[in-house]
Amino acid sequence: MGNNVSVGLLGLGVVGSGVVKLIEDHQEKLTHQLGLDVDVKGILVRNLEKNRGIDVDPTFLTTNPEDVLHNPEIDIIVEVMGGVEEAREYILKAFAAKKHVVSANKDLVALHGPELQEAASRNNCDFYYEASVAGGIPILRGITDGLSSDHIRKIMGIVNGTTNYILTKMNNEGISYETALKQAQELGFAEADPTSDVEGLDAARKMAILCRLAFSMDVELNDVEVKGISNISLEDLNYGKQLGLTMKLIGYADFSNRKLDVNVKPTFLSDSHPLASVNNEYNAVYVYGEAVGETMFYGPGAGSLPTATAILSDVVTVIKNMQLGVTGNQYLEPHFTKKLKGSAEKFAQYYVRLHVKDEAGVLSKISTLFNESNISFKRILQNPMKENKKAEIVVVTHQTSLESFHNAMNQLHELEVVYEIKSHYKVEGDAAE
Amino acid sequence: MGNNVSVGLLGLGVVGSGVVKLIEDHQEKLTHQLGLDVDVKGILVRNLEKNRGIDVDPTFLTTNPEDVLHNPEIDIIVEVMGGVEEAREYILKAFAAKKHVVSANKDLVALHGPELQEAASRNNCDFYYEASVAGGIPILRGITDGLSSDHIRKIMGIVNGTTNYILTKMNNEGISYETALKQAQELGFAEADPTSDVEGLDAARKMAILCRLAFSMDVELNDVEVKGISNISLEDLNYGKQLGLTMKLIGYADFSNRKLDVNVKPTFLSDSHPLASVNNEYNAVYVYGEAVGETMFYGPGAGSLPTATAILSDVVTVIKNMQLGVTGNQYLEPHFTKKLKGSAEKFAQYYVRLHVKDEAGVLSKISTLFNESNISFKRILQNPMKENKKAEIVVVTHQTSLESFHNAMNQLHELEVVYEIKSHYKVEGDAAE
Repeated sequence: MGNNVSVGLLGLGVVGSGVVKLIEDHQEKLTHQLGLDVDVKGILVRNLEKNRGIDVDPTFLTTNPEDVLHNPEIDIIVEVMGGVEEAREYILKAFAAKKHVVSANKDLVALHGPELQEAASRNNCDFYYEASVAGGIPILRGITDGLSSDHIRKIMGIVNGTTNYILTKMNNEGISYETALKQAQELGFAEADPTSDVEGLDAARKMAILCRLAFSMDVELNDVEVKGISNISLEDLNYGKQLGLTMKLIGYADFSNRKLDVNVKPTFLSDSHPLASVNNEYNAVYVYGEAVGETMFYGPGAGSLPTATAILSDVVTVIKNMQLGVTGNQYLEPHFTKKLKGSAEKFAQYYVRLHVKDEAGVLSKISTLFNESNISFKRILQNPMKENKKAEIVVVTHQTSLESFHNAMNQLHELEVVYEIKSHYKVEGDAAE
Repeated sequence: MGNNVSVGLLGLGVVGSGVVKLIEDHQEKLTHQLGLDVDVKGILVRNLEKNRGIDVDPTFLTTNPEDVLHNPEIDIIVEVMGGVEEAREYILKAFAAKKHVVSANKDLVALHGPELQEAASRNNCDFYYEASVAGGIPILRGITDGLSSDHIRKIMGIVNGTTNYILTKMNNEGISYETALKQAQELGFAEADPTSDVEGLDAARKMAILCRLAFSMDVELNDVEVKGISNISLEDLNYGKQLGLTMKLIGYADFSNRKLDVNVKPTFLSDSHPLASVNNEYNAVYVYGEAVGETMFYGPGAGSLPTATAILSDVVTVIKNMQLGVTGNQYLEPHFTKKLKGSAEKFAQYYVRLHVKDEAGVLSKISTLFNESNISFKRILQNPMKENKKAEIVVVTHQTSLESFHNAMNQLHELEVVYEIKSHYKVEGDAAE
């Protein structure tokens, strides 16, 4: 290593441009920390002619991946191209060429993280991917370094900015899901095809990555149960307000008795929960550790420069490891064999909204039915409806197992005084509950 | 290094006991991460007979510091004894004996951090002190590693749990400062002599430590301007509620044009600011980076086990460095020569509460006076008072320099329609303002 370390980029989109800009703008700080310069030599692009609004030496641009992957001057590959198969192939080639890799690619890391980590290790290379979860928030370091001595028991994350923006707008401005989605698209917070965000898949990828690191277990994307936000109605948000509850799309992971429950679901949070006031496009990850208790990491979950700071912090770590001669030491065998909780082992409170016959004794019948599944109520709201002889009932239960809750829901369908189960959501309080 | 690394403790109070307990309880995780066992061999105490409610091999206890500092089996010294001079002496001896040190001692690090860091480096030893700021929150790592590539511009911290508890109680329950302090003392959130907490000195120590790491500048404790919370009245908190402002004791640091402003002051935060909803004894540090934007790290600022997790995470880092043979590499010369901002370079909004004559034209006179200092009003509240011919006026200004604000305050004292300036506080909005 001489007076500089050179980085090669795979991709020069929004995040890639941010990386180039940050390396230039923050060179003084990098040089101070590392005692050498960091520069970019070689960028894989699809189109050599495209104007990206940043100054790049055009001789560094190439459409041939080998020009970057086998450039002997390049030590570190930054993968910001997205997609899965091609990215995986290039990264494996990079490791084979003894180059370190920093990736922002959550799809790839969620699907192939363990394979890539193992390949890195085998080649004495570093593989970091802080930017793949919650953009600019240093949450992976928080878990692996900051809380390294603790037993992490629970993670709850607002790890998708698009859905948080939509839910915040619906909640604060009383606009519909469709209108809020359209606004998010106009502002660039949602993509033209928003499916992966609004249906929770993007959040699920991040939860798989978080769980692996937090619980030292080979969690796969398929282990994450997913439900999106596209069916959420303003009626439920308004009832939430009356009950002191705020709706968020929560990535939830609970590890106890050496078994894991991990899912992504729209969830009502008690207003006093630290995540409840995380608004707009912001992300936050709440981590509950046995010894440390409640912690939360908050910040921007996406964006060119925030994501680039996470990538560049990984680059700084790699360069320090290179200088100390200690690259390739991250890989840790999972400590626990994967075991997932069954529905009798998953506990939560629930919110249920029902349309029922507006007649005497209805609430008593419903309450009896829940009691038979050992579920008791914490809160009840009942309103007459405009339609004749119809009432709307909202209940919030005490803690119950998912099994009991499913059981009660099935029986509720059969009860003749119930017209319809309009909605039901998990409710999470603060840790004290 | 064999199959284990041994730790020596200086002190076995609340935090020391937590460290012993955590090393025992989390041994499995430590062994998995490190491939070796961690144990405690040697604890310096003042009183061998005292019952501490934990199981410790009594042969490890000693009242002679040399037994710990020169025990050849001990590689890492954990300093949790508190105080300054003795702790400094022992730590310097530890480095001379080539032992690594992890400290939770904010008083010591605030006063002698650079000297100790330098001594560590000279002896190829590690010196970490994550627990000295904001207890269980991994904020020092967040700044030095997570945001290593960014230019940090602003830090705002709720870094003292005692004062946050008192202010939360006053605000939520409408009780006086004295009553809230008494409750905090009964619950163990405040000490019998609460001066160092309530007058802001404890927070100032933490800000000095944070500033050194965030801004790479030799900030000293004396550079931190300090004002405490003991004069805060319920009247001001209530006006704050009307104005959408919450009072917090904020450690504030602003670095721009290569000059620093650092202080600890009771501050009104806009309710939408991420720190405004940090309540009770919790701590949080808000960090604004040029590229990343707004981030926040939240968690418990004190307590036996939370603080012990931070200490033990440092111990894990030291052991990893030992295994890789790379200890003693943390020290970084400050990048910037210390320059502090003058009052013409410090900008904020201000809240001012006045008692004035209740007669026509008063507000106009006051407003004219502020305008002459180039200060304009953002919000005004005026209420008649029970006392005859007296009114209470509260104003919130737009951004102004501290110099202009002082100027206006001095002139306000002279204005004959003003009976008294009851209070004035800095106001901080969200980053967007």
